[in-house]
Amino acid sequence: MRVLGIDPGTIRVGFGVVEAGASTYRAVAFGVVASASTAPLPERLRRIHAGLTRVIARTGPDLVAIEDAFSGINPHAALRIGEGRGVALLCAGEARLPVFSYAPTEVKRAVTGGGGARKASVARMVAFLLGLPREPSPEDASDALAVALCHCLRAPGSR
Amino acid sequence: MRVLGIDPGTIRVGFGVVEAGASTYRAVAFGVVASASTAPLPERLRRIHAGLTRVIARTGPDLVAIEDAFSGINPHAALRIGEGRGVALLCAGEARLPVFSYAPTEVKRAVTGGGGARKASVARMVAFLLGLPREPSPEDASDALAVALCHCLRAPGSR
Repeated sequence: MRVLGIDPGTIRVGFGVVEAGASTYRAVAFGVVASASTAPLPERLRRIHAGLTRVIARTGPDLVAIEDAFSGINPHAALRIGEGRGVALLCAGEARLPVFSYAPTEVKRAVTGGGGARKASVARMVAFLLGLPREPSPEDASDALAVALCHCLRAPGSR
Repeated sequence: MRVLGIDPGTIRVGFGVVEAGASTYRAVAFGVVASASTAPLPERLRRIHAGLTRVIARTGPDLVAIEDAFSGINPHAALRIGEGRGVALLCAGEARLPVFSYAPTEVKRAVTGGGGARKASVARMVAFLLGLPREPSPEDASDALAVALCHCLRAPGSR
């Protein structure tokens, strides 16, 4: 099973593709689709859509795992996050990939054992679980790998 | 000048194309891009993206006018609204169309003279301004025509 984790945004989108083997997890690819922060929103979304579509075509995932809303944010921030999330979900829909959403606390708990874990702990565990020589960089890519791993660790019969 | 007004959503998206002439406004096309409410969100967004892309190709607008966030909504609703809005903005970006955002009160004030106008008043004024025999239906299409008219009435040198 190959899982594409996405950390959505309207300027930078983290992605991380994890292959779940019999007893191990492997990072197939990870990185960031970035657009110029000075570009108008529709142009940024166009580049993000094109970039994510390319990632899906090149890595051939079976499904998408994505973080759901952050709790405790204000409506304005939620609207902006939704705009990035909508485009990421569209890419999944166009590739006919099923999508699984996980709350941030679920991702942290699955990867580190604690729902309140700090970013650094999540990054360390992502590196450990994937056998990477160091913590994946940048942070958006690490977060995307974490949500992909969350799906692998949480989904029943996922291997 | 030809303006595509969009009333975004994740199940139904209203659209209304208004042509601004020397002293009149004409409704070129209006309607709704609908997806099945029972379909998964990525599939709904895929259909909305395909439908809006078709509307743009067929009607050839010069720009897009869209309602900005509703005030007073909760973060969860804002996230869902953002998902639909992100896909609408992407369609504009892919067609390289500039996008103008208007607050709901701005749209109501531009069309009816009052920022607190009721839906029915807005629909009546949309029909009057466009010389339509009756109020445009469904409501999503009427709202989309209203935001397109708002841009025509508000934008400096828009005619």
